[in-house]
Amino acid sequence: MIENNVFASQALKDKLYAKIEAKTDRMIAIRRQLHEHPELSFKEKTTGAFIANFYQGKDVQVQANFGDGYGVVVTIDSGKPGKTLALRADFDGLPVQEETGLPFASQNTGVMHACGHDGHTAYMLILAESLYELKDDWAGKIKIVHQPAEETPPGGALGMIKAGVLDGVDAIIGVHGWAPVPYGTVQCTAGPVMTGRSSFKMTIHGKGGHGSAPHLANDANVAASYFVTIAQTIISRRTDPFDMCTLTFGNFDGKGSFNVIKDAVFLEGDVRFMRDEAREIIETNFKRMVKGLELMFDVKVDLFYDSDYPVLNNDTDLAATIQNSLRHSHSHIQELTNLDTITRNTASEDFAYFAQKIPGVYLFVGEMPDDGIFYPHHSPKFVINEKALPLAAKTVGVAALDFLATH
Amino acid sequence: MIENNVFASQALKDKLYAKIEAKTDRMIAIRRQLHEHPELSFKEKTTGAFIANFYQGKDVQVQANFGDGYGVVVTIDSGKPGKTLALRADFDGLPVQEETGLPFASQNTGVMHACGHDGHTAYMLILAESLYELKDDWAGKIKIVHQPAEETPPGGALGMIKAGVLDGVDAIIGVHGWAPVPYGTVQCTAGPVMTGRSSFKMTIHGKGGHGSAPHLANDANVAASYFVTIAQTIISRRTDPFDMCTLTFGNFDGKGSFNVIKDAVFLEGDVRFMRDEAREIIETNFKRMVKGLELMFDVKVDLFYDSDYPVLNNDTDLAATIQNSLRHSHSHIQELTNLDTITRNTASEDFAYFAQKIPGVYLFVGEMPDDGIFYPHHSPKFVINEKALPLAAKTVGVAALDFLATH
Amino acid sequence: MIENNVFASQALKDKLYAKIEAKTDRMIAIRRQLHEHPELSFKEKTTGAFIANFYQGKDVQVQANFGDGYGVVVTIDSGKPGKTLALRADFDGLPVQEETGLPFASQNTGVMHACGHDGHTAYMLILAESLYELKDDWAGKIKIVHQPAEETPPGGALGMIKAGVLDGVDAIIGVHGWAPVPYGTVQCTAGPVMTGRSSFKMTIHGKGGHGSAPHLANDANVAASYFVTIAQTIISRRTDPFDMCTLTFGNFDGKGSFNVIKDAVFLEGDVRFMRDEAREIIETNFKRMVKGLELMFDVKVDLFYDSDYPVLNNDTDLAATIQNSLRHSHSHIQELTNLDTITRNTASEDFAYFAQKIPGVYLFVGEMPDDGIFYPHHSPKFVINEKALPLAAKTVGVAALDFLATH
Amino acid sequence: MIENNVFASQALKDKLYAKIEAKTDRMIAIRRQLHEHPELSFKEKTTGAFIANFYQGKDVQVQANFGDGYGVVVTIDSGKPGKTLALRADFDGLPVQEETGLPFASQNTGVMHACGHDGHTAYMLILAESLYELKDDWAGKIKIVHQPAEETPPGGALGMIKAGVLDGVDAIIGVHGWAPVPYGTVQCTAGPVMTGRSSFKMTIHGKGGHGSAPHLANDANVAASYFVTIAQTIISRRTDPFDMCTLTFGNFDGKGSFNVIKDAVFLEGDVRFMRDEAREIIETNFKRMVKGLELMFDVKVDLFYDSDYPVLNNDTDLAATIQNSLRHSHSHIQELTNLDTITRNTASEDFAYFAQKIPGVYLFVGEMPDDGIFYPHHSPKFVINEKALPLAAKTVGVAALDFLATH
Repeated sequence: MIENNVFASQALKDKLYAKIEAKTDRMIAIRRQLHEHPELSFKEKTTGAFIANFYQGKDVQVQANFGDGYGVVVTIDSGKPGKTLALRADFDGLPVQEETGLPFASQNTGVMHACGHDGHTAYMLILAESLYELKDDWAGKIKIVHQPAEETPPGGALGMIKAGVLDGVDAIIGVHGWAPVPYGTVQCTAGPVMTGRSSFKMTIHGKGGHGSAPHLANDANVAASYFVTIAQTIISRRTDPFDMCTLTFGNFDGKGSFNVIKDAVFLEGDVRFMRDEAREIIETNFKRMVKGLELMFDVKVDLFYDSDYPVLNNDTDLAATIQNSLRHSHSHIQELTNLDTITRNTASEDFAYFAQKIPGVYLFVGEMPDDGIFYPHHSPKFVINEKALPLAAKTVGVAALDFLATH
Repeated sequence: MIENNVFASQALKDKLYAKIEAKTDRMIAIRRQLHEHPELSFKEKTTGAFIANFYQGKDVQVQANFGDGYGVVVTIDSGKPGKTLALRADFDGLPVQEETGLPFASQNTGVMHACGHDGHTAYMLILAESLYELKDDWAGKIKIVHQPAEETPPGGALGMIKAGVLDGVDAIIGVHGWAPVPYGTVQCTAGPVMTGRSSFKMTIHGKGGHGSAPHLANDANVAASYFVTIAQTIISRRTDPFDMCTLTFGNFDGKGSFNVIKDAVFLEGDVRFMRDEAREIIETNFKRMVKGLELMFDVKVDLFYDSDYPVLNNDTDLAATIQNSLRHSHSHIQELTNLDTITRNTASEDFAYFAQKIPGVYLFVGEMPDDGIFYPHHSPKFVINEKALPLAAKTVGVAALDFLATH
Repeated sequence: MIENNVFASQALKDKLYAKIEAKTDRMIAIRRQLHEHPELSFKEKTTGAFIANFYQGKDVQVQANFGDGYGVVVTIDSGKPGKTLALRADFDGLPVQEETGLPFASQNTGVMHACGHDGHTAYMLILAESLYELKDDWAGKIKIVHQPAEETPPGGALGMIKAGVLDGVDAIIGVHGWAPVPYGTVQCTAGPVMTGRSSFKMTIHGKGGHGSAPHLANDANVAASYFVTIAQTIISRRTDPFDMCTLTFGNFDGKGSFNVIKDAVFLEGDVRFMRDEAREIIETNFKRMVKGLELMFDVKVDLFYDSDYPVLNNDTDLAATIQNSLRHSHSHIQELTNLDTITRNTASEDFAYFAQKIPGVYLFVGEMPDDGIFYPHHSPKFVINEKALPLAAKTVGVAALDFLATH
Repeated sequence: MIENNVFASQALKDKLYAKIEAKTDRMIAIRRQLHEHPELSFKEKTTGAFIANFYQGKDVQVQANFGDGYGVVVTIDSGKPGKTLALRADFDGLPVQEETGLPFASQNTGVMHACGHDGHTAYMLILAESLYELKDDWAGKIKIVHQPAEETPPGGALGMIKAGVLDGVDAIIGVHGWAPVPYGTVQCTAGPVMTGRSSFKMTIHGKGGHGSAPHLANDANVAASYFVTIAQTIISRRTDPFDMCTLTFGNFDGKGSFNVIKDAVFLEGDVRFMRDEAREIIETNFKRMVKGLELMFDVKVDLFYDSDYPVLNNDTDLAATIQNSLRHSHSHIQELTNLDTITRNTASEDFAYFAQKIPGVYLFVGEMPDDGIFYPHHSPKFVINEKALPLAAKTVGVAALDFLATH
C-alpha cells in the first residue's frame, strides 16, 4: 500500500502536456511514416536507424544495435540525483499483407504494422523529446528502451536484458495501444495482467496400413484424438480452478487418404496461464500424459514443449503509484475519461521479461476508432485511433514525473 | 475330410433306440429328482454319490471323487480291442432361487439347476446303462465322465484331466441342452464353437478430495471413465476384424458422494474370443493400456487378469464323423428334424479343456419348450423340454457307436 | 470506494470488548452444551428452544419457529433512529458420528457439530447480549438471525427470507469459524467469496445383455464413461478461463456383474462457480450434452439438475466498511493478528441468499487449534480453537457498531 | 450341396490347355503392351478399342462402348443349346506414377497398371480366343465381359448391368491376380469373399477464435477428436462380434495455426464389412452419432455417407462346382499346387454388383514373383508373376467347360 504519494508539480505537468499537444502533428506524421515502412522482427534495420537518428543533436546517450537486434537505448540524464526509470516501446511489424486501404498503408509487401507498434514508437519519441526538453525540472534519469522483435518468441526483450539494459534501472513502464478498448480508457491493473504462454509441437508415430486391416497397423489418428480428449483434464481437473489456464490444439494435422491408416499425426498447440505455478502444473501433466500416451497406444511421440513467455506481473506498488498519479491528474488530462484498474488481457508480451527483473507496469491505452468499428490486432484491416497517441504520451509522461518525484 | 466312414450296424442302433425309449420315463424321473436337489459347484456331494450309486451292480469300473471334487468316472469295457471314447456330462447347479413353480422345483433354497445339468446327467446315466447292456455288440471302451463344477471357473474339468481322466482316451463328446433352440435341432459345428473367456478386476487408485478443489485430488472416476473409452480400441483397432472378440466392463463401481472426488474405483469385466491368438492380443493390449493409464493419469492400478476358459474347438474330423453319423441315421431318429452344422455359441465352457487335449466335439441339443416360450439359461424361470433328453441320448449314442465302428 | 468512514467511539468499543471478555467462559460453556446435543437440519427443535430461551427476560422481540423450521429472530431496538443491521448465525449439526474423544462430545448417535455451528451460536448469543446491554450507546436496530438447516440444500435461509426476515434490514453480516485458518486471522474479502453450487443426478438407460453379445444390448457403462470424458470440456472449453468453475462426478454407480452389460447407470455430481454467468453456462452446456448423449448412444437419460446455492457475493461497500473498521480497531483487538482481504473459499453457503437480497458480508475467523493440527470441516475428528469464539464476537461487534455509526 | 457333378471331357480340357500354352507368349506380349499404355477409369478409350479390335475376324458378337464407358462385351455362341456363362475381366489403370523400372513400364505419366488389370485382360483375350476355337466341343454360350473403371466407385459394373450385360446369363466368373499370394495357389471360397465398403466425408463446423479465449469460440478440433473416440464403439459394441467390420478415419484435417481455435475440421473415412446387415448397422449408428455430435458440441456437421460397394458374395453352389472342377483337374493343371477354399479378402470389388444379380464367383490367382518379393497392389513398384496369367486362363477355362457341361 502506497501511503505517502508525493506528486510532481502541476506546473511541470502542464508544461509537459503543452509540449505533447504542440508536437502531436509530428507524432502522427512519424507514426504514418513508420506505418508505411514496417519491418519484421529482428530485421528492423531501417526503423532502428530512424529512431537513433531522431535523437541526433540532443544531449542524450544513444546506444544503437543494443542487444541481439536493432534495439536503441537512449538515456536522458537530468544531472540531478534520483531514480532511474525506463520507458519501453517496441517497433517491429508483422508478416501480414495490409488491407486497410489507408493512404499511408505499408509499402512493404507482406509486412504490416498490424499490432500498432508504429504508434508505440511515435508517441515515445515525442514523449522522450518533451521530457528531455524539461530535464531541468525533474531529477534522476529516464531511459528510453526502443525494443525490436516483440512479435517473435522469445522476443527482443531478453537480448536487451542480457546486454544490460536494466542495469541501474529502478522501474520500467510500457504501453500497448489496444483497438478493442474505447479511446479515453487507460487500463492499469496490479498483479498478473497478461498471460504467460507455453507452446508445443508433437508428432505421434504409429504405423500405417490399410483401413480394412487395422490390426496390422497402429492408427495415429486414433491415438491423437484420444490425446486431445485426455488433455482436457489438465484444465478441468489438474489446475487450480482459481487459475486462468487454457490449452488449445490449434493444429491437428492428420491429413491423409480416407482409406489409409495414418502412420503419423502432428499436433501443435498453445498454453496460457496467469500464474507461473499454473505453467508448471500444465507442463508437468502434459509431459507425463505424452509418456502415458506412448504406452497406452504403443506409439512414439516426438515432443517439443517450450515456455515462450512468462506471466506479465505488474508490480503492485508501481501500479498503485501510477493509478494514484492518474487519479490525481484526472482533471488535467481531459481525454482520460476512464481509469480501469481491473481488466486483465489474455494475450502475452515479452515485456514480461523486464517485469520479472525489476518493478514494471504495462498499461493499455484504448485505441478504438471513434466510429466503434475495430479489427483485432494482427488483422490485415487493423487500424487505430491516432488520438490515443498523445494520450499515451501524457499518461506515461505524468506517471514518469510522479514516479521520479515520489521516490 | 472324412472319406471312408464306416457305420455301426443299423440293427445295433435300433436296439439302442429301443432301450432309450423304454427307459425314457426313468430318465425323466432321474432328471426331476436331481432337479429337486441341486448342489453348487464343488459341493455336489449328494449328486456325486447318487451317480456312483446308479452304477452299482453293473460290471463297470466306477471311480468316485475323481479330480478336485465329486467327479465320477465310469469305464464300460466291451472286452474287445478298439478305441476308447469318453462321454461327458456335468452335474452342478447354480446359486439361483428357482421361480418356475414346477412341482419338482428345487428344495434347496438359493440353489437351482438353472442351466439344465440335471438333464445332462439324466440322459447320460440312461445312455450309459443302455450302452453297457449292449456292450457285446460293440468294440473298445466307453468312459462316462460325470464332471462336477462346470459353472465356477476354472471348473471341474481341469482337475479331472490332471487326475488322468483322458489317459488312453481317443476322443470325447459332450452335449449341452439349449433352451433357445427348438426341440428337434442338433447343432454340430466343426472348429471353434464356444468362446474362450478372460476376465479382469482392476482397482484404480487416485486421491480423494472435495469436488470444489480437483487440483488437490486425483479423480479416479475420471481416470476410469477414460479407460473405458480407450479400451474400446482394443476391439475396434487391435484385433483381427475377422475374429469374434468382445470386451465388456460389466461392473464400474465408482459409487460415492456426489461432491466428493473418488479416491479409488473398481472395474470388472469380461473378454470373449473365438481364437486363442485373439485372447493374447486382447490381454497384451489391455495390460499395456493399464500401464499407460497409470502414467497418463498418475494413478496406481491393481490388476488381476485371468484366462478363465480357452476357446472350445470342435475337432474337424470328429465333427465330420458325427455329422455323417447323424445324417446317416436321419431317417431312424425321427425326432431329429434339423442338423445345424454352422451355429457357434458365444458362451464359454470348461469342456474346452478336454478338447484342448484330445479330439472333442461339443453338441447342442434344442430344449425349447413346445409352446416356444423359453427363459435364458441361468434365469430363475429356466425350464427345458424334457423330450430333448432321449433325443440327446440317441444322438450321442449313435455317434458313439459309429465312432467305435469307424476307427 | 468508501471515502468518509465514520467510526463508533472507542469508548463504546472498549465496553463491548470488556463485556465479551467477561462472558467468554459462558460463551464456551454454551458452545460445549450445544456440542453435546447436536441436531440435524430442520430437526433442531431443542436447539431452537434453547436459543429462544436465552433471550427470556431481555427487552427484545423474539420470534421463534421463524421460516420453515426452528429459526429464531431477535430484534434489539436501540429506540433511536438509524440503520437496521442483521447478524446471522446458523445452528444445525451434521449426520456424522463424532470421533473426537472430547469430554463434551456429541451424545446424539450419528449426529455431530462437525462444522462448528455450535460455536457460531455461542459467540452470537453472547455478542447479542453484550450489544443489548449497550443499546443506549448506539442507534438503530440489530436483528439477530439464528438460522437453522444450513447444511441441507436449499437450507434454512430461503424460508426465513420468505417469512420476511430481511424486511427493513439494511445489511447483514455472518461468520464462519474456519479450522484450516490459523487463529488470529480474520478474512474479509470483497466480491465473490464463496462458490455457488449446482448439483445433478442422472440415470442413463441403455439395454442390458450378456457381455458376449454387445450388439443385442446397449451398454450404459460405456455411454456413461464417454459422458464423463465429454463433460470435461465444459470446464476446459466452455467457461471463461478467468472464472473459477468445477464439475465433479462424485458418484458413478455402474455396479454390476462382470459379464453382464449394464442396462442403467446412475451418475451424480457437483458443480461450483464464482460467478452466476458461469453457473448458467455450465448448466446450459450440461443439459445440451445430456440431450446429445441420448442421441449419440441411443440411450434415455433422466436428469435432475438443481441450482443449490448462488454465489456468495460480499458487498463491496460493506466489505470496505468492515475492513476499515477492523484496520481502525487493530490495536484494540490484539488477538486479531492478520486481516486477510483476498482469500476466497471454494465451499458454498446459504448465506448467499441473504447477500442476494441486501448488502451482506460473510467473514471467516481462523479456528485452527494452537498445535496446528486440524481436521477438515465435516470430519468426525473436527475440532475448533475455542479462543476464536470471543474474537469472532469482537470482530462482528466492532463491525456492527461502526456500521451503525457510519450510515 | 452339389451331389451330381458332371465334368467336361478330359480330351476337351487337354485341347484347351494346349492352346493356352501355345498362346502364352502372345498373352504376355499383350499384357506388356497394355502395361505400357494404361488409362484411368472411364477414360480407357484406347484400351477398349484394342480389345474390340482383338476379336476382329472372329465369328463372335462384339458390343463396344457397352455401358457408361468403354466396356466391350463379346458373345461366343456354340450354336448348341445350353447355359450362358459370363467371364469378366477389368481393364483400367490407376493414378500412380510407375517406379518399377521395367522395360515395358508405363509411358503415360502418372498412370500405371498398378493393380494388374493388364494381366486380367491379357489372359482373358487368349482364353476367349481358345474357347472360341473350341466352340464346336462345348454347348451354350460364353459372354466375355471386358469391364472398364473398376477402380473408381461406383465402378463400371453398374453401368454394364443397367445396359443389360447380364440378360440371359446364368452365372459369372471373375479373377483377380493377387501378388501377396504365392504363384500356384488359386483361392475359391464360398460365401462372402470380399468386403463391402462405405465411405464418408464430414465437415464439423464450430467457431474460430483465439486459443486464450476458448469460451468465445467452439473448438472443432475438440469435437472431431471426441467423435473419433466415440465412433470406436460402433465396431466395439454395435456390430455383431461375429461380423468382420472396420471403421477408419484416414483423413483428419484439423490443420491450422497452433494458437488459433479451429472453426471447421474435415474428417474422411472408410467402412468395411462382410455382411450387408453390418453395413446397415454401421451406417445407422454413424448417422445417429453425427446428429448426437451436433447437439453434444453445438456444432453443425455436413455429412456425405456413401455405400460404395456391396459385399462380394460368392455363390455357394457355383463355388462348389468350381472347387470340384479344380480338384478333378488337379493332376492335369500341374501349376495349380494349392486350392484354398477358405481365405477371404478385405478389399472391395465392383464385381460384387454382378454377384448380387446372378450366381457369381470371384477367384484369386496367386501372382507373387518367384523370389517372394512383392509390393502391395496400388504401389508404384507393383509387379506380377506373369506365369500366373496362363494359370488363370486354365483355371477359368476348365471351370467354364465344367459349368457348361454340368448344367
